[in-house]
Amino acid sequence: MGENRRNRVTVDIYGEPYTIVGDESRSHVRMVASTVDDQMREIKSKNPYLDTKQLAVLTSVNIVSEYLKVKDQLEKLEEKNRKEEE
Amino acid sequence: MGENRRNRVTVDIYGEPYTIVGDESRSHVRMVASTVDDQMREIKSKNPYLDTKQLAVLTSVNIVSEYLKVKDQLEKLEEKNRKEEE
Repeated sequence: MGENRRNRVTVDIYGEPYTIVGDESRSHVRMVASTVDDQMREIKSKNPYLDTKQLAVLTSVNIVSEYLKVKDQLEKLEEKNRKEEE
Repeated sequence: MGENRRNRVTVDIYGEPYTIVGDESRSHVRMVASTVDDQMREIKSKNPYLDTKQLAVLTSVNIVSEYLKVKDQLEKLEEKNRKEEE
């Protein structure tokens, strides 16, 4: 993998630095990090007793839940378009 | 909110119990939890030195990244359909 042009981007999430290595653009990685940071702070404000690990796990839970819904919408729309083209 | 019929579902993610309260069905919550658990284990297998907090944050990063891509695809397809209907 060393020969690929992979980006290394260091971002700050909930006060700690994380180095993200991948094919994504730097701007995409920064937007992702900022979304995670925002969500963690939002969940913390509603649940002040949670520790950082629990906060991050619950952030993942929220986002997977949204992800599955959006993916379902996308699949339904693709299916609808396919039927209309027949 | 107490009067709503909100589900309380306790799930196990990466060896710890989390109680999720929300309007989602139990089966949806269980699928979400199992997706998060799988992703954490997958990232851990590739990065054994990560602690659970870092693992949880990086899992959120991966999931937000996928979420933003799928959401972008959905918005483009909706836009395309709107233009075709004009």
